[in-house]
Amino acid sequence: MATSSSPAMDRLVTSLKRLPGIGEKSATRLAYFLLSARPEVARELADAILRLQIDTVVCESCFTLSDRSPCPVCAGPGRDHGILCVVEEPADMAAIERSGGFKGIYHVLGGALSPIDGMGPESLRVGELERRVRAGGIKEVVLATNPTAEGDATAHFLADRLAASGVRLTRIAYGMPLGGDIEYADHVTVSRAIANRRALTD
Amino acid sequence: MATSSSPAMDRLVTSLKRLPGIGEKSATRLAYFLLSARPEVARELADAILRLQIDTVVCESCFTLSDRSPCPVCAGPGRDHGILCVVEEPADMAAIERSGGFKGIYHVLGGALSPIDGMGPESLRVGELERRVRAGGIKEVVLATNPTAEGDATAHFLADRLAASGVRLTRIAYGMPLGGDIEYADHVTVSRAIANRRALTD
Repeated sequence: MATSSSPAMDRLVTSLKRLPGIGEKSATRLAYFLLSARPEVARELADAILRLQIDTVVCESCFTLSDRSPCPVCAGPGRDHGILCVVEEPADMAAIERSGGFKGIYHVLGGALSPIDGMGPESLRVGELERRVRAGGIKEVVLATNPTAEGDATAHFLADRLAASGVRLTRIAYGMPLGGDIEYADHVTVSRAIANRRALTD
Repeated sequence: MATSSSPAMDRLVTSLKRLPGIGEKSATRLAYFLLSARPEVARELADAILRLQIDTVVCESCFTLSDRSPCPVCAGPGRDHGILCVVEEPADMAAIERSGGFKGIYHVLGGALSPIDGMGPESLRVGELERRVRAGGIKEVVLATNPTAEGDATAHFLADRLAASGVRLTRIAYGMPLGGDIEYADHVTVSRAIANRRALTD
């Protein structure tokens, strides 16, 4: 459907509407923005889209997205290859790397179990994880899937699968986020923060 | 902020976040979509963005967006240059053209009066409209700004400005949309549909 009398505008709107969550109205608003934006804003966006698939590879070892394989984390010096942190997405791995609190290596599952969305174990990199653990050298697997129903289910599923391997299985801690407000926190978070309380003399 | 370990991904997320209404989360979701999309989907989008500013011109006569100036409507055969339809945006003009119910010419204001958004008469093509009307040949001006508070205010403002010109000034009709449901229509629409009722023998 033509939304303007400019074929170039219609073409962009049609292209934008293919993106998830972008309908006719948002596509038109974005197209008008790009029409009146500084030319380099449009050029940089177009270039970033074109380069994305060319410049992104999946790390053959941990399956994160990177510009090379193995990725800088897997190939990095000073990483402890005995501790493997399992995350859902590359963005989770990036967040843990930014925190600076982990010096082991990673395994990116590619999502979490979610039967409703058709995500079963075969859609995730579960077999690859079992192979890495079976290959030996790993002493601990940290299950760092998200603290959501899907993430928890995935962590339990993986714990079952890896139980026989004999490696230590741990789950990230639940509790109050730093700067959080107990009054406004959800009750599951509060009850877990109480249940997992630690002695101050630890 | 790096959201992944892929610089190409981070670059695209940064570029997408410059668009209106797109935050970190939507930008990341769009980037993942484009990463796994068929290559031609990404290529067509990038190309449409690049061509937009190059291939789009503003019609020197009606100020719509087009691939040429004057636009196909202004230059078209069989248009009545005595009736001028004033709209807010090129998309409104396109919608009226699609309806096939109008054979005159257009004037695109570039928006509606909205003091809250800093849109005063000087931000719209009001002076250009007055010049076109003053140049003669126009017998009727149809004020087809949107049926919103801003569109109504703009129509009234333009009616005042053009009152002295002696041309006939009309406003698009308000009433029930075809296929609408009286039970669920807002009360302003219903009361206008009643007030503007027409004899069936017209």
